[in-house]
Amino acid sequence: MNGAESLVRTLVNAGVNTCFANPGTTEIHLVDALDRVREMRCVPCLFEGVCTGAADGYARMSGNPAVTLLHLGPGLSNGLANLHNAKRAGMPVLNIIGDHASFHRPYDAPLTSDIEAIAQPFSAWLRTSKSAAQLGRDGVQAVAAARAGNIATLIVPADAAWCDGGQPAEMPHLSPAACPDGNVIDRAADLLRNGKPTVILLGGRSAQGDGLLRAGEIAATSGAKLMVPFAFPRIERGAGRPMVERIAYLTEQALGQLRGIRQLILVDAAPPVAFFGHPDRPSMLVPEDCTTLSLTRAGENAQAALAALADAVSAGVGFKTEPLMRPDRPRGEITLTGLAQAVGATLPQDAIVVDESITSGRGMMAATRAAPPHDWLVNTGGSIGIGIPLAVGAAIASPGRAVLCLEGDGCALYTLQGLWTAAREALPVTTVIFANRSYNILKGELAAATPNPGPRALEVLDLGRPDLDFVSLAKGLGIPALRTTTLEDFASALRSGFESRAPSLIEVPL
Amino acid sequence: MNGAESLVRTLVNAGVNTCFANPGTTEIHLVDALDRVREMRCVPCLFEGVCTGAADGYARMSGNPAVTLLHLGPGLSNGLANLHNAKRAGMPVLNIIGDHASFHRPYDAPLTSDIEAIAQPFSAWLRTSKSAAQLGRDGVQAVAAARAGNIATLIVPADAAWCDGGQPAEMPHLSPAACPDGNVIDRAADLLRNGKPTVILLGGRSAQGDGLLRAGEIAATSGAKLMVPFAFPRIERGAGRPMVERIAYLTEQALGQLRGIRQLILVDAAPPVAFFGHPDRPSMLVPEDCTTLSLTRAGENAQAALAALADAVSAGVGFKTEPLMRPDRPRGEITLTGLAQAVGATLPQDAIVVDESITSGRGMMAATRAAPPHDWLVNTGGSIGIGIPLAVGAAIASPGRAVLCLEGDGCALYTLQGLWTAAREALPVTTVIFANRSYNILKGELAAATPNPGPRALEVLDLGRPDLDFVSLAKGLGIPALRTTTLEDFASALRSGFESRAPSLIEVPL
Repeated sequence: MNGAESLVRTLVNAGVNTCFANPGTTEIHLVDALDRVREMRCVPCLFEGVCTGAADGYARMSGNPAVTLLHLGPGLSNGLANLHNAKRAGMPVLNIIGDHASFHRPYDAPLTSDIEAIAQPFSAWLRTSKSAAQLGRDGVQAVAAARAGNIATLIVPADAAWCDGGQPAEMPHLSPAACPDGNVIDRAADLLRNGKPTVILLGGRSAQGDGLLRAGEIAATSGAKLMVPFAFPRIERGAGRPMVERIAYLTEQALGQLRGIRQLILVDAAPPVAFFGHPDRPSMLVPEDCTTLSLTRAGENAQAALAALADAVSAGVGFKTEPLMRPDRPRGEITLTGLAQAVGATLPQDAIVVDESITSGRGMMAATRAAPPHDWLVNTGGSIGIGIPLAVGAAIASPGRAVLCLEGDGCALYTLQGLWTAAREALPVTTVIFANRSYNILKGELAAATPNPGPRALEVLDLGRPDLDFVSLAKGLGIPALRTTTLEDFASALRSGFESRAPSLIEVPL
Repeated sequence: MNGAESLVRTLVNAGVNTCFANPGTTEIHLVDALDRVREMRCVPCLFEGVCTGAADGYARMSGNPAVTLLHLGPGLSNGLANLHNAKRAGMPVLNIIGDHASFHRPYDAPLTSDIEAIAQPFSAWLRTSKSAAQLGRDGVQAVAAARAGNIATLIVPADAAWCDGGQPAEMPHLSPAACPDGNVIDRAADLLRNGKPTVILLGGRSAQGDGLLRAGEIAATSGAKLMVPFAFPRIERGAGRPMVERIAYLTEQALGQLRGIRQLILVDAAPPVAFFGHPDRPSMLVPEDCTTLSLTRAGENAQAALAALADAVSAGVGFKTEPLMRPDRPRGEITLTGLAQAVGATLPQDAIVVDESITSGRGMMAATRAAPPHDWLVNTGGSIGIGIPLAVGAAIASPGRAVLCLEGDGCALYTLQGLWTAAREALPVTTVIFANRSYNILKGELAAATPNPGPRALEVLDLGRPDLDFVSLAKGLGIPALRTTTLEDFASALRSGFESRAPSLIEVPL
């Protein structure tokens, strides 16, 4: 067995069975091994940022790492922006990067680069395999590192892949994440009993599953407010679930949300800070006199911590929620409020919403607050171009669930290639493009920076002349698409998209 | 004057007046400065790899660095793959990367990353500016570093850009590159006089301008053969110019071209090596007993060296060339040979050909050997996705010249967004997409790796199901396009494209 096959077998044995791939010559033996290890699903992508963004989406929905298979330093480079987002999401990703054969590296052929140096800023675990015999062992260590919520990068020289002597390795037993010690739980319980205005900030994986339900009980018992950072990886929300408020993007607005807070309990989260620094606004969003307690430290089990805390504050009495309530289906001319209502009116049960709609989608979460239960995923690292890949990965991790991808037109253009993968894999992803023909958020920033923005600056932020035509772009990538100019058409198109259980795209000119 | 304006003024004073931009909030003051420093042309791009590839193309045609304006670590990351290519081309590029305001960095906001670490593997010169007052001086040093043929990266914290106290700096006088000393010229001349089979390998900027003409004289006098590496940045070629042979991509073929060579004179080039290592093929392409001499060292003036060498071997008698000769316009069904003939039959005088056609375009250079004088640019670093951006940059550097961009379908999908910039700037770029619906070169590599490639491996290398529709994709990005299925239609479409002096795209299903 060659090294490549031993690595793929090792991954499958360790429960890692999905690969988002954009390989080249140096990865060809790993590609070849797919026919001998059929348990590994390999999803082709046309650009590496799709691979890494899809791995992030897959991890957010499955909790498991997927593999990305990328071509030397440049292939890895194209995937880095979405690795940044995945790293900020705390998601596990396992990158496998081919390199030149070890004997060929010293010749400095055109594709040679320092792959370790390129990977380092984004990788918590990083190794170059030395031989076919070692690939299996390196593989289990990479999986173990990824499962701890990390980006792990394994560089595989081509000769390590093609040489014989591969030995699949078995995954050692990993200890489950520990619950924080009782002192921390007690201190948090004390804070929750003292009656002061308190926010529980749910980061990482804590706004989902039982942890979220227990957090709802804690909030109902104590009067604390549940919030998530602006850049959160995933919330389970909708009718029957605890209400969780998102911290706003705009600094002034976020400061308003947090004004008067006296206590902040952090669950797998850092204290909230402004997205960007401004000359006349603070970077830290919580008041200076706010008492802050971290319920969990890195690597601790947030779900167990929330359960322990709920027990400690004598919760278990249920939590406040709203019954299912949808907005009416809107009619008439397109407005941002109307678009959000249409989403609220049509979102199916168990949908996954990927939201990279930036300025156009600011009303979306309010309009879906009491929609049927669903998941909400957003950009965690601020590197735009995650939405379409995230939807691909979430759909692959969640068979049978509808995915709604809300995209700004500017964002969509970074990783539009992901639509082809959605078509190829027949994924039930309905993509909505909010076509305001500009980097609209930057126009706001420009106006904040200068009293009279000039025409040349505005031109750089303008996506028109020529207008992007997303119906044609989608068609070019194999996705049926239409353009809607009324709210009733938009709502119908959404419903058709959901019911089709196939990929589709709706362009909404604004 | 704020720091941003002082930096833009400094660049313009230093002769750097073109910027390929995909900015964000942290760069907004630099964008704002464009209205006060109107000599800086700012070209918007929808993806950072377009910015860096365009800067490479601009440098190849103008000899000058362009600026890329990119958004923090992730924006830089998206530009790295084409920076790899530019670095391999030895081209100057000046990256300006915004960062968080210095007071905001410690808060580790979502877009925070170690930008220096990300830039380092690709940058010969790298600095984070400390203040508005320093931006001007940092700017001239960055320009000086870039002009030496390097990637220079200047990181600009947002507060350095927005604070007052900016001081534009003047460019110091840069000494011109030195000619190699006479001993090296004499040794090369001795080699050229001894009658042994000799190759002169023209790297960097040596296959253009007077240097190329003098190299032609040297070859005519001495019988040496002029060659370029497989991955060369630019050749001036066509009727009336010296014949230069390109080393082949396939190792066996390259070994055949270099078999029997006894002497190799390197002009701004490294000894040629195989593109990839293979278990049973050598990495080094020249015979072991070949005498190798580097005519120039890094930073020396290759053009002057070739002139001195031509004088030394008593050249000056002209050189062998062919009269203008075009293939006949082909007719009938599409064949790769016919497509190449059509290009040879229609290529206008002074065209710039950007060739990223991989397997489909292997006959292109032969069919255009004696076409009217033109330039030929290829991928220098092996990171596919350079073609469309390179064409954008070359067109902007070369007003009035037609650009032909020959693209494989797989390659085109990495940086397709560049078509929009071509449309926005009304650039005379005719793009041809060779749609073989696969990463065809990898199918060859797979067949070489394994006797019976399996269906799952082949599927990963397949771009069909659904087929990419480049006519729709081009339309979506604002470029008129058509699909041709006969050679006469293809030749007509080429001619129309050239005559239109506007962007167009031709998809050729194979």
